Amino acid sequence: MIPSDNYPSSALRDAVEAISSLPGVGSRSALRLALHLLKQPPEKIHRFASAVDNLAEGVHYCKTCMMVADGDQCDICADSRRDHDTICVVESVRDVMSIEATGQYHGVYHVLGGIISPINGVGPSDLTIRELVARVGPGTEVVLALSGDVEGETTAFYIYRQIEGSGCKVTTLARGLGFGDELEYADTLTLGRSIVNRQIFKP
Amino acid sequence: MIPSDNYPSSALRDAVEAISSLPGVGSRSALRLALHLLKQPPEKIHRFASAVDNLAEGVHYCKTCMMVADGDQCDICADSRRDHDTICVVESVRDVMSIEATGQYHGVYHVLGGIISPINGVGPSDLTIRELVARVGPGTEVVLALSGDVEGETTAFYIYRQIEGSGCKVTTLARGLGFGDELEYADTLTLGRSIVNRQIFKP
Repeated sequence: MIPSDNYPSSALRDAVEAISSLPGVGSRSALRLALHLLKQPPEKIHRFASAVDNLAEGVHYCKTCMMVADGDQCDICADSRRDHDTICVVESVRDVMSIEATGQYHGVYHVLGGIISPINGVGPSDLTIRELVARVGPGTEVVLALSGDVEGETTAFYIYRQIEGSGCKVTTLARGLGFGDELEYADTLTLGRSIVNRQIFKP
Repeated sequence: MIPSDNYPSSALRDAVEAISSLPGVGSRSALRLALHLLKQPPEKIHRFASAVDNLAEGVHYCKTCMMVADGDQCDICADSRRDHDTICVVESVRDVMSIEATGQYHGVYHVLGGIISPINGVGPSDLTIRELVARVGPGTEVVLALSGDVEGETTAFYIYRQIEGSGCKVTTLARGLGFGDELEYADTLTLGRSIVNRQIFKP
């Protein structure tokens, strides 16, 4: 709506352009956010900028599981109480945080750093699959916790093929009706899986 | 949803906290944005951070109209082709940009820096009303381009009282049915004003 040559200040224009480069932030929202920051005291602006700047060098990756960490090893891999023979394979850092938030998983992780997606030009070699293969062997359980879409299924199948000869056990997330889901609105595939994989009722 | 002590890296946590301090950005969106930035090359992260950082010192305000500017005078006040006797009073920088985008206004501006709002603790002395009063006199037209809500009306009335003795002409934005608005959905106040202030039909 607002032409880009209409900015009254080049510093404001630069900030709006930077902010609108974020996914899901249009130029209108970016302007709103930049003007909000502009109203803050300079120290707060500096603090904001340095917190973001610090992402470039302040974030490390765990050498074992590729999770974001403060150093060479993440807290989860460093925790001896976790089951290091159960490795949950996820697409991203966010998925680790989501599973950790459930409090239901006590193994370790392996962050792929993406999902196989030919459309987006992401192939198996762009992911940390080789590093995963090096971690598994007899006695290891690999939990494939990938999305239920085509790309997730493709990636799961590719990984399965790479590790099936290692003697590890490969499992995947249970699929079924979500808690609170209404039966009549469930898609047939999910509902079908829910019936096939029905479980003993525990009242 | 994600507890704040669950961040795998302190640098990531700091960035998420900074980003989620922006209006309308929750901690989930902030995490998504921080992880997006984290995936970018370090130079891009630095560029982003310095563009934001530069808001603190790189943005100046026009001494005359209080608009955001590159120096002591904004491009609009510096433009001799603009009508410097017509001063459009607006709440914020964004309003100037919106009016400029119409291409229909050829006067200058005065940015109040807010609106009188006792609920938010904003009184007349927090705005640039004194500076406005100093700019007006006989031969000046002051266009009050404030929002049509109670706070806008209050501010307009307060400013009117401050400048009515100066001999300036005070005008306000035309109110009425918007282009494309459907009559049956217009509120009665707007529709009423549209009828009272009806204009000669120019086909």
